[in-house]
Amino acid sequence: MSEKLNQLKAILGEVSDLNHAASVLGWDEQVNLPPGGGEARGQQLATLGKIAQEKFTSDEVGRLLEDLKSEYADAETDDGAMIRVTARNYEKAKMVPPSFIAEQAVTASKAFEAWVEAKGKSDFSIFQPHLEKVVDLVKRYVSFFPPADHPYDVLLDDFEPGMKTSEVKEIFGSLRPKQVELIKAIAASKQVKDDFLHKNFPEKKVWDFSEKIITKYGYDFSRGRQDKAPHPFETTFSVNDVRITNRFEKDSPLATLFSAMHESGHAMYEQGVNPAYERTPLESGTSLAVHESQSRMWENIVGRSLPFWEHFYPELKKAFPTQLDGVGAKAFYKAINKVEPSLIRVNADEATYNLHIMLRLEIEIGMVDGSINVRDLPEIWNAKMQDYLGIVPPNNAKGVLQDVHWSGGMIGYFSTYALGNIISAQIWEAVNKDIRDLEDQFRKGKFDELRNWLTEKIYTHGHKYDPQDLVQKVTGSKIDSAAYVRYLTKKYSDIYGL
Amino acid sequence: MSEKLNQLKAILGEVSDLNHAASVLGWDEQVNLPPGGGEARGQQLATLGKIAQEKFTSDEVGRLLEDLKSEYADAETDDGAMIRVTARNYEKAKMVPPSFIAEQAVTASKAFEAWVEAKGKSDFSIFQPHLEKVVDLVKRYVSFFPPADHPYDVLLDDFEPGMKTSEVKEIFGSLRPKQVELIKAIAASKQVKDDFLHKNFPEKKVWDFSEKIITKYGYDFSRGRQDKAPHPFETTFSVNDVRITNRFEKDSPLATLFSAMHESGHAMYEQGVNPAYERTPLESGTSLAVHESQSRMWENIVGRSLPFWEHFYPELKKAFPTQLDGVGAKAFYKAINKVEPSLIRVNADEATYNLHIMLRLEIEIGMVDGSINVRDLPEIWNAKMQDYLGIVPPNNAKGVLQDVHWSGGMIGYFSTYALGNIISAQIWEAVNKDIRDLEDQFRKGKFDELRNWLTEKIYTHGHKYDPQDLVQKVTGSKIDSAAYVRYLTKKYSDIYGL
Repeated sequence: MSEKLNQLKAILGEVSDLNHAASVLGWDEQVNLPPGGGEARGQQLATLGKIAQEKFTSDEVGRLLEDLKSEYADAETDDGAMIRVTARNYEKAKMVPPSFIAEQAVTASKAFEAWVEAKGKSDFSIFQPHLEKVVDLVKRYVSFFPPADHPYDVLLDDFEPGMKTSEVKEIFGSLRPKQVELIKAIAASKQVKDDFLHKNFPEKKVWDFSEKIITKYGYDFSRGRQDKAPHPFETTFSVNDVRITNRFEKDSPLATLFSAMHESGHAMYEQGVNPAYERTPLESGTSLAVHESQSRMWENIVGRSLPFWEHFYPELKKAFPTQLDGVGAKAFYKAINKVEPSLIRVNADEATYNLHIMLRLEIEIGMVDGSINVRDLPEIWNAKMQDYLGIVPPNNAKGVLQDVHWSGGMIGYFSTYALGNIISAQIWEAVNKDIRDLEDQFRKGKFDELRNWLTEKIYTHGHKYDPQDLVQKVTGSKIDSAAYVRYLTKKYSDIYGL
Repeated sequence: MSEKLNQLKAILGEVSDLNHAASVLGWDEQVNLPPGGGEARGQQLATLGKIAQEKFTSDEVGRLLEDLKSEYADAETDDGAMIRVTARNYEKAKMVPPSFIAEQAVTASKAFEAWVEAKGKSDFSIFQPHLEKVVDLVKRYVSFFPPADHPYDVLLDDFEPGMKTSEVKEIFGSLRPKQVELIKAIAASKQVKDDFLHKNFPEKKVWDFSEKIITKYGYDFSRGRQDKAPHPFETTFSVNDVRITNRFEKDSPLATLFSAMHESGHAMYEQGVNPAYERTPLESGTSLAVHESQSRMWENIVGRSLPFWEHFYPELKKAFPTQLDGVGAKAFYKAINKVEPSLIRVNADEATYNLHIMLRLEIEIGMVDGSINVRDLPEIWNAKMQDYLGIVPPNNAKGVLQDVHWSGGMIGYFSTYALGNIISAQIWEAVNKDIRDLEDQFRKGKFDELRNWLTEKIYTHGHKYDPQDLVQKVTGSKIDSAAYVRYLTKKYSDIYGL
């Protein structure tokens, strides 16, 4: 039997190699590509994707899985978990005809172009027919799978294996009123000052400072690197080569620091996966939400905390004495946590961010179950913005057209961002039960005990456990927003004197 | 029939995509790889190579070629040439069992490690048993092919399609006495001064100057880039993404300029290939020797010429006024062309370089036909060095152990370097018949007419013609050393007043 397992692992290893090769090509496209190189690169990526898909969905993999499933039924063993995850991915992949994947790629490519133009002109009507096609394809995609409780379940499952729409709705439903209430209380308080954050900070010094921080976090530069790209992201070529990108924006110079913390959170997760899982479907983090819980924890819970800056602020001030002249650590801490309802999701602060997500989730569910018509999106978007955040976009570019996701057919993705925030607070409560002096450690610039705890409880397991099971194991309960409400309330009560 | 051609092109396109993906991974390995990333990268490259090989040697490709060969028999058409080259590559690839390729990779990997140690300790006995295995494998490789006039023909053909050992021997045989004679005459003359070349030149300024030069050459940075790596090389990801690497060595700072010229010569060749050949076996330069003729032409014939420096030297002097204080253009020109028999091939000057190659070729042929025993190599090496260059290495690290090639099983490669020099002079005579004022153009910093001529006559054809046929078409004769002797004699008579 172990011979068949080895045969399966050999094929999965090649699939992993192809996917990692594609990651290298994708990274290079963002970081290095000369202007002329785009077209051939797209072709090369398409070929790698096609071959990986063919290999993974081959009849041979099907036969091997069939033979191995009963022998390796114990999902608590590594091989058992690998067979379980592989079989699930295989069954899902087999349900989608290759011709559909090709059709979706073509539609997405055209929709993306239309979205760029529509956003540029702030004209939803340019994007509307393309989005309608995208939604039709998404519905067809859902139709390939056995009926679920809700059609949106099928989409969600691609990003959060095993997660149900009803669960997400319930989690968000209990969170929303409390988060809206908190924002109203903050709005009624005296606003904090943050003008000094928008002064002129030299790029090189900010970049170096970001690397100083994430080195202390424990991001291993001997198994990774940070490069400049249009958007910050993390990408994995192997457990020993996990790279991050970052950018520098003149009008928001210190955002580079927080992007580095965010991406290093993703990267430390990937660097911490059990090396024995390499070249198998267990080799990466378990889901987008759990991944996001780590990026948001290192960025927000750790990196926007007062103890963190009690350690780093003197050094920051030494690096930027004129820019931060007259600003104390507490004032700096308040400024980087300023809450202000705003139009653009990616710029939203910690307290308002989830509301941007909830709005999108409701619209996505409505598009998929047919209760929302694509042509009505701008109106619905603006009404919900008024409802949740009390502001209305002046145009569609700053409203319904702001995100790229839908043009690429990525419906089911957004909620993972908010789930990540929620999970991060649950894990934070759990780790603080085990390590009682974490904040004191931060004040000394020590993050290794936190990172080791996270590695042992989460990172090392890679994709062995599904997200809800992992959260249950680590925190004692399934995904639940109560910890996140407690976290936000405590933090912002202090900052805004609520 | 055209449907079958399209089927073949679809497979060849995927093979090309896989090979280009491997090139991206290889480039990244040299330019960016964090220390931890090496092992997984080796695995990924092995997988890409294996899949590309499987696809290319599939029975389907064999059947399609069989069906298409008679229909597309006219090698003057693009499709005819493509079928001819593909069929030849296919037949050669089919003769080598995949298990042999794997065995060779393992042997080469161990031999490389042994070579590193042997070179470090200057101890040939560490490398000897590994080189013996490498030679045995090379002999076995030869045995897979139909008997040739000389067993070495089989090896040569992998790098110079269609080239015979007897041809190379004849070319080198007529060149060697003349080149030895020239060097003796130079040695009897007053040596030129070049101490100022070894002063302290700041890296960034040298690097920028190198990019200024190759931009004027016509290397298209919108379809390429220059990055730092341990060794200079050129690599192709598509006709619109052709990259070069370079290095900076403190004790030989201006070598960076000549490396950039050299690699840009390779790169302009690749950037100039007919885009219609993309994703087919015609998409790259025709052979290593013809490729080298272009790198050496742009580096030596153009880049070490007096007219070139009459244009660039004032600017160089402005960039490095203290380093070049008191040095005129002519003195600079003489310095960068200083001839001095030396031990290390890669540092050899233009006049002595080919002798290093001839020595290696004779040893390679002897190893393959059995007339030279591996254990006698150090002695044979030193005797030939004395014979050709009048110097003997003080140890094997600076002698027989200096080059990496043999450890990787690359026997048959070296002669392409010398052939490249020879071809470059033939092409140079041909282009000067068509363009009478080339040197005047260089004095004005104009290189576009030369580049356009080369593009039209050579670059655009990619792999359509075999090297001897291409040289015949462009110069009116096959590869012949007479032009190179004329070129060297004229140049060094002037510099050394012979």
